[in-house]
Amino acid sequence: MQGFEPLTVPSEKNGALDLGFVECEGGVCAAAGMAASGVSAGFRKNPNRRDLALVVADQACTCAATFTQNRFCAAPVQVSRERAKSGVARAVVLNSGNANAATGEAGLKTALESAEIVASALGCDPEQVLVASTGVIGLQLSTEHFLTGVPLAVHALAHEAEGAHNAALAVMTTDTHPKECAVQGQVGGRTIHVGGFVKGSGMIQPNMATMLAVLSTDAPLSAQAAHSMLLAAVRHSFNKVTVDSDTSTNDSCFLFATGAAGGEEICEGSQAYEAVAAAVRYVCDDLARNIAADGEGSTKLVTVDVLGAANDQDADTVARAIANSPLVKTAIFGHDANWGRVAAAAGKCGVPFDQQQVDIDLLGVPVCRGGLDVPMDEQDMLRRFQDDEVSIVINLGMGQAHTRIWTCDLTHDYVTINGDYRT
Amino acid sequence: MQGFEPLTVPSEKNGALDLGFVECEGGVCAAAGMAASGVSAGFRKNPNRRDLALVVADQACTCAATFTQNRFCAAPVQVSRERAKSGVARAVVLNSGNANAATGEAGLKTALESAEIVASALGCDPEQVLVASTGVIGLQLSTEHFLTGVPLAVHALAHEAEGAHNAALAVMTTDTHPKECAVQGQVGGRTIHVGGFVKGSGMIQPNMATMLAVLSTDAPLSAQAAHSMLLAAVRHSFNKVTVDSDTSTNDSCFLFATGAAGGEEICEGSQAYEAVAAAVRYVCDDLARNIAADGEGSTKLVTVDVLGAANDQDADTVARAIANSPLVKTAIFGHDANWGRVAAAAGKCGVPFDQQQVDIDLLGVPVCRGGLDVPMDEQDMLRRFQDDEVSIVINLGMGQAHTRIWTCDLTHDYVTINGDYRT
Repeated sequence: MQGFEPLTVPSEKNGALDLGFVECEGGVCAAAGMAASGVSAGFRKNPNRRDLALVVADQACTCAATFTQNRFCAAPVQVSRERAKSGVARAVVLNSGNANAATGEAGLKTALESAEIVASALGCDPEQVLVASTGVIGLQLSTEHFLTGVPLAVHALAHEAEGAHNAALAVMTTDTHPKECAVQGQVGGRTIHVGGFVKGSGMIQPNMATMLAVLSTDAPLSAQAAHSMLLAAVRHSFNKVTVDSDTSTNDSCFLFATGAAGGEEICEGSQAYEAVAAAVRYVCDDLARNIAADGEGSTKLVTVDVLGAANDQDADTVARAIANSPLVKTAIFGHDANWGRVAAAAGKCGVPFDQQQVDIDLLGVPVCRGGLDVPMDEQDMLRRFQDDEVSIVINLGMGQAHTRIWTCDLTHDYVTINGDYRT
Repeated sequence: MQGFEPLTVPSEKNGALDLGFVECEGGVCAAAGMAASGVSAGFRKNPNRRDLALVVADQACTCAATFTQNRFCAAPVQVSRERAKSGVARAVVLNSGNANAATGEAGLKTALESAEIVASALGCDPEQVLVASTGVIGLQLSTEHFLTGVPLAVHALAHEAEGAHNAALAVMTTDTHPKECAVQGQVGGRTIHVGGFVKGSGMIQPNMATMLAVLSTDAPLSAQAAHSMLLAAVRHSFNKVTVDSDTSTNDSCFLFATGAAGGEEICEGSQAYEAVAAAVRYVCDDLARNIAADGEGSTKLVTVDVLGAANDQDADTVARAIANSPLVKTAIFGHDANWGRVAAAAGKCGVPFDQQQVDIDLLGVPVCRGGLDVPMDEQDMLRRFQDDEVSIVINLGMGQAHTRIWTCDLTHDYVTINGDYRT
């Protein structure tokens, strides 16, 4: 042992916890003025599985959204992307079991009709209803299940944690558990909440948003403030998750801001903005980590930190190359501290660096310094592999830029799940 | 069924077979003036496995080579890349079991010493001996096994097929079988041969060359001609293979041209050049397909053809996105004609196209036209999945550029093989 010190990963400054926020119950309903429900509407064959989620603000309110950049974007993405431009919305309806993607004009018509069904049940303008779908690509989605399911969902709407939880359940596909998070804290003398849920397990390498996420806050955000804090949070959270490098056709992330906490409108540049933005970021980070940890078939959450990159783009490219490497991911599944695969993944992606300057830590242990092997205690490594989280840190020695990406291991269960998903 | 015609994939014009070449025996020894051997030298724990290959030209001759672009390139790559610049070589020595990568100055010294050991046994200039290694990254390679193994390998050198075959065996790692190919044909009234072997099964997305390939011809190529025809062949063959998107640290491809067939030196621009280039391309294509078919854990060779791309780069990007998609690869393993995953993979990679113009065929059957589902006979698809080869063809409707990439499915065995490779 040559007594090398582990690499130091920079920590976020002014995180939500530093600003006095604490985690709380309630998910997407933690924010005052938000109700939600999740019901079984027949999109899935299994009548015991909830498959229709509805999230409704008590009144039309500020809403920001981001969407997939996949060229094969789904019909609901096309509809919601257009409608979100207004910065105002009342509700979002989400179904699982069918993605309504690659469905052409008929799919667009269904997406519009589903919003109309919700609008008529809520008594609001259809333009204020957003839509999202997740599931199989290429199959037509019928409006029938919306006709029967939406009245049930409206009836079940609740401002309590149970409503939020049922909504989170209803959007699950191969997720093994619902993913919710909420925080509360003081901003300008008033208590505000930020919460939400997300679904996502496979076809996960979000680009501008994750599979499906609905966030809400009772802070009185301006449309511009909601939009910019959502974009910033998504860029550093959902967009830093990769389960299998496959960007979905349906990624959508919505942020409702009801303003029910009261107080003056919050705009960019204020201290209040920074506080709410930190809370939004906290919730997004938590949900993003959860997506990676619940990646299809995964046994480990893997955190990849790239330090010492020449610039942000290089840091991101190297982090993604490592996080998407099947060889790295299977080595972790096999509890194999095979840092050579990390080095090879970093080296393959076109980012310039000098291998003699590269340091790598696995599981908090220095395993490579100056591009060379550092002898490790294999028994100690096997013990460390018992943790649910695996940390990979690489320092390229080229500059000051750094990034973090979350992924998971590649396992037999991933192959099983995706080898017979549709048939 | 709406009677759609399958997409038409452009075929190569003036292929080697069109020019009268036929496959023959002999692998890398098919070319006159080439000898090879493969022995057990102790690089591997299993004394029954050959792990040292030696390929020797009767005299120093024209030699071209291409290497990995991985920044973490191995010591033998650094040595051979420098030496290959002369355009002349006598021999290449290859070992399996240890990649001599991420081994610093000590690794470079070992690579140079191994060449000296070979040079002294053959009685040639060490500068004319090239080196290549494959195996685990990050471990020091000892010269000891070269000291004992090289004399055995020199003693075993043979001009016959058996020597070539033993060399092909000695470079195998997780390959399930040796990969050799050779052709012969008439060029300018003389019979010339092109042959070679390759190893590669995992960490395969070559960038400038494949894992390890040694090719030879008895055609009298100029150094410039050998270099340019090798580059062209590699670009369309080995560089179009991806098993797992992981570019190796050790990729090396060598072409020896002994000139033993006689006749005038062949330079670029001549008819003879085109004929030999077609033969080199044929051998590279065959070996490249073989790498994909023998990808770690694979049950299927998958051919991805992208048609109608706006340009070559777009075609390549889309083809790689599809070929590297874990969701596409697991669907094939599961015999699931899930074209939505092909569409999503094409859409995620940033290449612009209009989803309403996209056509997709799976296994020769139209499954998507104009971005929409074409009903298929599931029983017929399951029957077609019995073949060893799976064809994916996508037309982006954006232009005339097209490309083909080879890959394989992603299976439980890939996870098993890579989950416990090192430990």
